[in-house]
Amino acid sequence: MINQSILSELKKIVGPEHLLTELEDMHTYSYDAAVLDSQMPCAAVMPGNTREVGKIVRLCHENRIPITIRGSGTNLSGGTIPESCGMVLLTGRLNKIIEINEQDMYAVVQPGVITATLAAAVEKRGLFYPPDPGSQAVSTLGGNVAENAGGLRGLKYGVTKDYVMGLHFFDAQGRYVKTGSRTVKCATGYNITGLMTGSEGTLGILDEIILKLIPTPVARQSMVAVYDTIDAASETVAAIIAARIVPATLEILDNFTIRAVEDYSHAGLPVDAAALLLIEVDGHPAVVAEEGEKVETLCRKMGAKHIKRAETDEEREKIWSARRSALSALAKLKPTLVLEDATVPRSKIPEMVRALQEIAKTYRIDIGTFGHAGDGNLHPTILTDKRNTEEFKRVEEAIEAIFDKALELGGTLSGEHGTGIAKAPFLEKETGFSSILFSRQLRAALDPHNILNPGKITGVSTNDKHQTGQN
Amino acid sequence: MINQSILSELKKIVGPEHLLTELEDMHTYSYDAAVLDSQMPCAAVMPGNTREVGKIVRLCHENRIPITIRGSGTNLSGGTIPESCGMVLLTGRLNKIIEINEQDMYAVVQPGVITATLAAAVEKRGLFYPPDPGSQAVSTLGGNVAENAGGLRGLKYGVTKDYVMGLHFFDAQGRYVKTGSRTVKCATGYNITGLMTGSEGTLGILDEIILKLIPTPVARQSMVAVYDTIDAASETVAAIIAARIVPATLEILDNFTIRAVEDYSHAGLPVDAAALLLIEVDGHPAVVAEEGEKVETLCRKMGAKHIKRAETDEEREKIWSARRSALSALAKLKPTLVLEDATVPRSKIPEMVRALQEIAKTYRIDIGTFGHAGDGNLHPTILTDKRNTEEFKRVEEAIEAIFDKALELGGTLSGEHGTGIAKAPFLEKETGFSSILFSRQLRAALDPHNILNPGKITGVSTNDKHQTGQN
Repeated sequence: MINQSILSELKKIVGPEHLLTELEDMHTYSYDAAVLDSQMPCAAVMPGNTREVGKIVRLCHENRIPITIRGSGTNLSGGTIPESCGMVLLTGRLNKIIEINEQDMYAVVQPGVITATLAAAVEKRGLFYPPDPGSQAVSTLGGNVAENAGGLRGLKYGVTKDYVMGLHFFDAQGRYVKTGSRTVKCATGYNITGLMTGSEGTLGILDEIILKLIPTPVARQSMVAVYDTIDAASETVAAIIAARIVPATLEILDNFTIRAVEDYSHAGLPVDAAALLLIEVDGHPAVVAEEGEKVETLCRKMGAKHIKRAETDEEREKIWSARRSALSALAKLKPTLVLEDATVPRSKIPEMVRALQEIAKTYRIDIGTFGHAGDGNLHPTILTDKRNTEEFKRVEEAIEAIFDKALELGGTLSGEHGTGIAKAPFLEKETGFSSILFSRQLRAALDPHNILNPGKITGVSTNDKHQTGQN
Repeated sequence: MINQSILSELKKIVGPEHLLTELEDMHTYSYDAAVLDSQMPCAAVMPGNTREVGKIVRLCHENRIPITIRGSGTNLSGGTIPESCGMVLLTGRLNKIIEINEQDMYAVVQPGVITATLAAAVEKRGLFYPPDPGSQAVSTLGGNVAENAGGLRGLKYGVTKDYVMGLHFFDAQGRYVKTGSRTVKCATGYNITGLMTGSEGTLGILDEIILKLIPTPVARQSMVAVYDTIDAASETVAAIIAARIVPATLEILDNFTIRAVEDYSHAGLPVDAAALLLIEVDGHPAVVAEEGEKVETLCRKMGAKHIKRAETDEEREKIWSARRSALSALAKLKPTLVLEDATVPRSKIPEMVRALQEIAKTYRIDIGTFGHAGDGNLHPTILTDKRNTEEFKRVEEAIEAIFDKALELGGTLSGEHGTGIAKAPFLEKETGFSSILFSRQLRAALDPHNILNPGKITGVSTNDKHQTGQN
């Protein structure tokens, strides 16, 4: 319990100005970007350095206080919703880029650094940090690591876990654990770096992150392909991959999303198109020219009625800012937006797109579909009003139908948004109960008093009568 | 204990012809490629399918019998040395390539598939499985996953962990755990796939492996650069990386190794050269032409006195088979060969190379240096005779000096050979004791009776009086 004595200890550690307990602040940290019930914490603390983080974790360990670490709260699976009357550890002041090593191509950062800030800082030195989650302008690298965030470039460049070389973190007992290395290869000890990435703040509190960087691609070509049917667009995605071309980015927008984006951003999108593909190839200029040509030919062959290449940086920027505004544009249409990210092997994209249309019809709901088609990671986005309980029940049924279809096609519940609270009840459908037991045993051993972001990932199971581990 | 009743159970499970207990067989499985004392198992069992593997693991769980899983035994850190009178589980019969999916670019394999066999099978379909450990012609993919094996292409293409998308395995209690996915992105549940990769058979017994494949590079250019000083060669490595060129392969051979290889393979290497760089760039023909040119210019600028490009496939093959024979060639010179793989950030290669020369002098031993210079992963190879106890003591001191230097330069104990038994005593130097405790807690929870490959990774610590976990 967070009582007065704990609060005064916390004040001593971080200074009174960095401890928040007012009701309005607690409201701010009671929810995240997932459509889930909020839970009010009793305190939010903003440490300014490693020493303070360590003291806070040890205080929480000794007093069994649940800690939820929080970056910018852009989480889409409820991973940053705290325990009722628990503590929120805010990483906003842990925002230093500690090192950018050009020779060895890595960066060392604190968890509160904004994703886009690092990307811009390394770009100035001719280096590239590829992971670009939709929220990159505000999301933190600590949050990206905790969620194993993806983004638009996952197709060619992979996701956050492909760039985490090492981590320093405090475990549940407040011990400082170092894992991984500044070297490209590291086979020393367990791959705890891999385990921690995507663990949603349940196994430790991050303090330092070592991230791999790569040389910046020299050239880029973006284009928009316009389709009369969404089937033709999604078949094009499969055809591009089948031709062994791996674009940096290969996004789809359905008509519903196109209209919402155009209303919102006036980017000049063709509102009568059934679907758009937004494509970027990058690399050596010769590769870009050749792949750009091949992609364009394939798009036409598969039925694109019009293709527009970006001729200038401004035109390129316009394409991608339109794409990046999709979520905000859709969010304006109805009070509640549920953004899903069930993911399928990329060859199954046409089938998944058709299934989404069926599901929208069956459950009589609005689904806007956009997302990272090139890596099978669509974002079917359901527009609803949570206060309309009858409709919201249909929404929940539709979500489960989406999950079932993704699994039927050999896919996964979450491509990049994590498990959190939202997907925990469905985890067993994908992995089976043994994997949940394995995860719980692991977690109970590493956090025996269940203080690190309780209730996430391994929270719920239909088999819970057989439960052997805790949490 | 493996008694008669256990043996008859095992016979029932796999059939008598797949259970080995003869002394000569036990000798075969008592050691691996690391220079460590052998330990005799009491049985070796060769299951033929998933069902048999599960039955064996459950039998061992119920009877607390230690299991060491073994592929081809090419392990260089003692990871496949069994417990005395424990059981060895051989994966030789689990050698099926279950699926090669061209559209979605992945393969599903059993753990006993030989690395080179998969590489060749996917190459026929225009796909590429990049990890190429030195032992690829005999090593198994299960072993590669267990050790997070590297190889010559680590520089550009990463190591085994960068290609493991998912795993199915039996945990210590014989439960079947599924983790990861066939999708490019997967953020569902904990990243157990990451944790298992490099866990050296201590957390589960692998049954199926899902591996990522990529399109085969269209063109390749290999070359050999000849140097008068090893300093100039190692400075060239740093210069190539600084120029933002990432070759597929960038290997160094010192004079000692060159002479050994030439004696062994008569490949026509210049035996008077102080050092060679063997370099391959790959990708689009335009990139290969341009990078090949740039690399050649850089080599000359940094002091290469001669550069020979491979003009034909045969010439290319000759270069790489010479490189691949280095270990065998050195092994012929003296009775005992200790192959180290301490790794440094790549810009520190010149300093590490100089340190190795100093260490050879200080301890009056022969060190042949070759390896993956481009990713900082050198293989200083000590030639000795273990029976010469006075010299071998100096060898052990030299190894520790190599580790200390690598850590001083911001490096790691093992780039790709794992921790096993050989490096467990030094682990704390790199990670600190907290990381060992964290690892032990994790392991004790997942293998409470300590039956999965005991004694590896977390085995030894100077702080063991403070030990809280088991094993």
